[in-house]
Amino acid sequence: MRIGIMTSGGDCPGLNAVIRGAVLGGIKRHGDEFVGFKDGWKGVTEGEIIDLPRQSVRGISKQGGTILGTSRVNPYDGPLGGPEHISEVLKENSVDALMVIGGEGTLAGAKRLADAGLPIVGVPKTIDNDLNGTDYTFGFDTAVQIGTEAIDRLRTTGESHHRVMVAEVMGRHVGWIALHAGMAAGAHAILIPEVSVTADDIVQWVEEAFDRGRAPLVVVAEGFLLDGSDEAYSHLGLDEAGRPRLGGVGEVVARLVQERTGLETRCTTLGYIQRGGVPSAYDRVLATRLGMAAAEAAHDHAWGQMVALRGTELHRVPFSAALQSLKKVPQSRYDEAAILFG
Amino acid sequence: MRIGIMTSGGDCPGLNAVIRGAVLGGIKRHGDEFVGFKDGWKGVTEGEIIDLPRQSVRGISKQGGTILGTSRVNPYDGPLGGPEHISEVLKENSVDALMVIGGEGTLAGAKRLADAGLPIVGVPKTIDNDLNGTDYTFGFDTAVQIGTEAIDRLRTTGESHHRVMVAEVMGRHVGWIALHAGMAAGAHAILIPEVSVTADDIVQWVEEAFDRGRAPLVVVAEGFLLDGSDEAYSHLGLDEAGRPRLGGVGEVVARLVQERTGLETRCTTLGYIQRGGVPSAYDRVLATRLGMAAAEAAHDHAWGQMVALRGTELHRVPFSAALQSLKKVPQSRYDEAAILFG
Amino acid sequence: MRIGIMTSGGDCPGLNAVIRGAVLGGIKRHGDEFVGFKDGWKGVTEGEIIDLPRQSVRGISKQGGTILGTSRVNPYDGPLGGPEHISEVLKENSVDALMVIGGEGTLAGAKRLADAGLPIVGVPKTIDNDLNGTDYTFGFDTAVQIGTEAIDRLRTTGESHHRVMVAEVMGRHVGWIALHAGMAAGAHAILIPEVSVTADDIVQWVEEAFDRGRAPLVVVAEGFLLDGSDEAYSHLGLDEAGRPRLGGVGEVVARLVQERTGLETRCTTLGYIQRGGVPSAYDRVLATRLGMAAAEAAHDHAWGQMVALRGTELHRVPFSAALQSLKKVPQSRYDEAAILFG
Amino acid sequence: MRIGIMTSGGDCPGLNAVIRGAVLGGIKRHGDEFVGFKDGWKGVTEGEIIDLPRQSVRGISKQGGTILGTSRVNPYDGPLGGPEHISEVLKENSVDALMVIGGEGTLAGAKRLADAGLPIVGVPKTIDNDLNGTDYTFGFDTAVQIGTEAIDRLRTTGESHHRVMVAEVMGRHVGWIALHAGMAAGAHAILIPEVSVTADDIVQWVEEAFDRGRAPLVVVAEGFLLDGSDEAYSHLGLDEAGRPRLGGVGEVVARLVQERTGLETRCTTLGYIQRGGVPSAYDRVLATRLGMAAAEAAHDHAWGQMVALRGTELHRVPFSAALQSLKKVPQSRYDEAAILFG
Repeated sequence: MRIGIMTSGGDCPGLNAVIRGAVLGGIKRHGDEFVGFKDGWKGVTEGEIIDLPRQSVRGISKQGGTILGTSRVNPYDGPLGGPEHISEVLKENSVDALMVIGGEGTLAGAKRLADAGLPIVGVPKTIDNDLNGTDYTFGFDTAVQIGTEAIDRLRTTGESHHRVMVAEVMGRHVGWIALHAGMAAGAHAILIPEVSVTADDIVQWVEEAFDRGRAPLVVVAEGFLLDGSDEAYSHLGLDEAGRPRLGGVGEVVARLVQERTGLETRCTTLGYIQRGGVPSAYDRVLATRLGMAAAEAAHDHAWGQMVALRGTELHRVPFSAALQSLKKVPQSRYDEAAILFG
Repeated sequence: MRIGIMTSGGDCPGLNAVIRGAVLGGIKRHGDEFVGFKDGWKGVTEGEIIDLPRQSVRGISKQGGTILGTSRVNPYDGPLGGPEHISEVLKENSVDALMVIGGEGTLAGAKRLADAGLPIVGVPKTIDNDLNGTDYTFGFDTAVQIGTEAIDRLRTTGESHHRVMVAEVMGRHVGWIALHAGMAAGAHAILIPEVSVTADDIVQWVEEAFDRGRAPLVVVAEGFLLDGSDEAYSHLGLDEAGRPRLGGVGEVVARLVQERTGLETRCTTLGYIQRGGVPSAYDRVLATRLGMAAAEAAHDHAWGQMVALRGTELHRVPFSAALQSLKKVPQSRYDEAAILFG
Repeated sequence: MRIGIMTSGGDCPGLNAVIRGAVLGGIKRHGDEFVGFKDGWKGVTEGEIIDLPRQSVRGISKQGGTILGTSRVNPYDGPLGGPEHISEVLKENSVDALMVIGGEGTLAGAKRLADAGLPIVGVPKTIDNDLNGTDYTFGFDTAVQIGTEAIDRLRTTGESHHRVMVAEVMGRHVGWIALHAGMAAGAHAILIPEVSVTADDIVQWVEEAFDRGRAPLVVVAEGFLLDGSDEAYSHLGLDEAGRPRLGGVGEVVARLVQERTGLETRCTTLGYIQRGGVPSAYDRVLATRLGMAAAEAAHDHAWGQMVALRGTELHRVPFSAALQSLKKVPQSRYDEAAILFG
Repeated sequence: MRIGIMTSGGDCPGLNAVIRGAVLGGIKRHGDEFVGFKDGWKGVTEGEIIDLPRQSVRGISKQGGTILGTSRVNPYDGPLGGPEHISEVLKENSVDALMVIGGEGTLAGAKRLADAGLPIVGVPKTIDNDLNGTDYTFGFDTAVQIGTEAIDRLRTTGESHHRVMVAEVMGRHVGWIALHAGMAAGAHAILIPEVSVTADDIVQWVEEAFDRGRAPLVVVAEGFLLDGSDEAYSHLGLDEAGRPRLGGVGEVVARLVQERTGLETRCTTLGYIQRGGVPSAYDRVLATRLGMAAAEAAHDHAWGQMVALRGTELHRVPFSAALQSLKKVPQSRYDEAAILFG
């Protein structure tokens, strides 16, 4: 079998381990051949292809990023988009199956193509852990670990200067990274997109912690929206939709806390360091297994399905299972964490 | 409610996060009081007790080890052992519930005491991940991460010197750490107690890797037993039972590989660095949640039960669920990893 | 002898190791007593003092921040400032010597007080490595290491997305952190306050790297000023003085690069994570030795002097040696690094 | 100019950064050509050579080990050894200068060859920091950092179990790694080859620390020799020369401490993890600068000289400066550290 692999959307620690797992697994179990499409759907639609012999994946499972490159191109865009042309590209290159490694947008495109009859299997990828149908996605553990280590560092500065420290972590639509990194780092408040929290709540948590002699730590997901009158916070830099006009929401929360509590407050936005670099052992194992399982799925002609983690075992689920809705932090998990606030 | 906590057996990253989770959770939800018994069952039987007010658990979730100390004392040993005396100790100290954090041996003792009517809840603890009834135990992720980082370092030495590198990791009865760290580090052979492997197998994997230009990497769990005639390997340092007479099995495997392949081979035994120090974010989150859940279990008088992880959620299971047998690496998981050997 | 210690200015990895070195050294060599003034000059002027017995410094050399707290208070400000009052505070508390751990501003205050006859010795402290009279200061190595690890992570994202990555590191007046972290991480351009660089230079380095197939990496110190007409860059967010109006200079450089090259460019500002958390082994050793040497300096009544590193040995230099001018990156060191640009 | 590079002896973090610094520096400043000899003197004598174009050193400064391979072959051994043959190899390959990166043995060979007229420049390399003529060598900082992090981990286990922990670190002839890692980790005793210490001394330090409620930590260099009657310790595993018969000296010290103090004692031998893997930022900067400086030295025909660090600047010193004697830990540095023992 000749299997094409592509990686699409934002980069994520573990992508290379998936590629290696798939290539080694397919070669050693079935004598497969592998090729890679460059830069996501762009390479698929334009037929930009490279060979992936065994030696090409040597030692890559601990490398961040993706050796195939990535982009945010949509497979239905432009004259080269759509199932007919992509099907032709696969045929021209004698590719029997396409392994798509990507997040919600990528898998949505893959689903449409698979529904149109293309031989596609998927591997779910999201740093934010916001895909349904799987317990965890690779990259998330690394992001949480990097975030936690960084926040550990911020705390000693907060304590030495008796300051409030605000750390903004990734999570545009869901708060999983904030929830886990905040819990691991012992945050006094965690602010996530899923849960409505008022300025008064935040101030109370911060002041409680300060009154006990702590340097308050607030972990906020980039997609958090401050609840309440938008006008009330416009001088802090929020627009009419409650979104920060400049910088991130972490800066806004820091200004709010400083204004309301009188405590010196500093914000650090962790940014891209959360998504690059050496993957954690957890992510390397998960990604390697997913890659191997996806190659098996191709052999089983499990088109339209992606491999997923449930408990400790891998399963196959239809793309649709991942696409019905974002996997949000449930209120029960937030309430559990909130017991430790303040 | 007044809850006593004890930690028993080998130390494990995350113990302090469990203690903090329990104490903060119990205080904030129910206004509980907490005390700690020092050094495991020793403190329980001898009534050595310290107060655990809120400030005593401040900032400890990222500290390795246990602030309560630990020991390998059995609760049924000596004149102070057994349910009657321990029950008296609890009463004298007005302790309404005993939270036992420990591994197989500890939980076995806890089960006997709970069966005798003592108010005991449990938190499973094992670096080796060998307890049934739970998907993972805290400490395991940290051990795998430390092991993987160390093995990553060994590889560059192997490659520069064209040597075989053998890394011995923890795992007396089960090979989970070896399986995960070996998979994460891209080992060419993983040797675990559960799976019989001959010297010929090992030699073949090593030579295959070497012939492809790699510096072969062998990861071996400390409890691995070399298959085959014991006499055949006695000159390598194995006794009649096939166990190493001196040093660990890693050294024996290294001598075997060097003798059989003629390749320069070096062994590194990672030892205690795998079980101490700052826990990973994964383990801090899991341990914090388990501690909170165990305090709830005490409030629900869930005596004889321990808290456990299934998928992403916590459950309660009877002690017996964890004690029927060790959770071994199933053959299917070994076979999956073995595809990548050689 | 009874020695008072204070830490002042921004926190810095290694402060606690200095305190521990001084306390243990003084106690074990001379049977000294130690006290700490809280929050820098604030505690000195207000007489806020705590005992520092041996057990108070237990295990702190690997803790970031300072157990004494810090502030940016000036010893000459307000009614409690000035040598007469401070001298009285020392006498009232039977403090025979004051050990001042701080940077340029702190040492300037200490010099004035020492010139006025107060028994003061100093330990130079700056993350930025901008103090003369010493080869290196503790905290700098940790900041460079943290910066390098973070930039290593950024690179894999840049490479996967074919983007330019800009990393803004600390260094308001000097570029030592940018120079070292940039060199360690293999930056294609390093921008520092000391060296005038035009937009054309930056664009050329970025394009050269991109044309060779690399994801260009630019490391910029927060104090870098873009050379050339200010008006030309006002749309990028520079004010009339050439300083960024909002956010940091990294964002400005990123906007400039993207505008001029057409390449997608992203900026990450590392911020406070560079100055908190566990110090590197290098900094722990240096800080411990400096603390011990400062206690000896107090015993030798070396008032008005600070301990300093030259090569591998510690020396004493007058405060003035550190205060004549900032230790800037010499042109020769920049030229050496610039050979690797592009 | 066409410059050949070789790396010889034990691998060391930073070797690749030296190679990259030399290659990029030479190409960009002078348009040089570079080749590499494989596996140390073996490749030089056998003429095994590879091209080192610019792209071959891409991204390697953060890789441990050496892309050229290494061996312990002596340039005067065998029929291919000696200056005549090596000179011929250089000529045949049009190599104008040979850059030798190695430790004492390697540099001794290089000196003999340079004295015989060969165009050789050197870069000092030793993890152990035992070369004279330079303040520090690259690799040492990384080894100390890895050792310190590992020992930090051991401490929490010692404290939880009230055990003595012994850590054996590298250092066959000198104790620099033990001195620095021990000081950074807060060891209660540091044992090094240069300083005679009796069993009574060790026992006293251990018991003092234990009596203060600490878990004693002993850091011992692999080359440490226990002082006193050899017979007295033969049951601990010492031979007549006072060297351990099996395992390392760490094990012997652990048995001694346990026997004499009755305290449970465990030894961990860090082994090869100290010399592999990602170099610290400090070592990457130092190694890059040394590589660039060595290429300049070749251009200046500074034959028979090596580049070296003094303070913050690089210099050239004759090979002989590094070879007169090992750079041992001076008694004053040991005494300074010993103040903190016990």
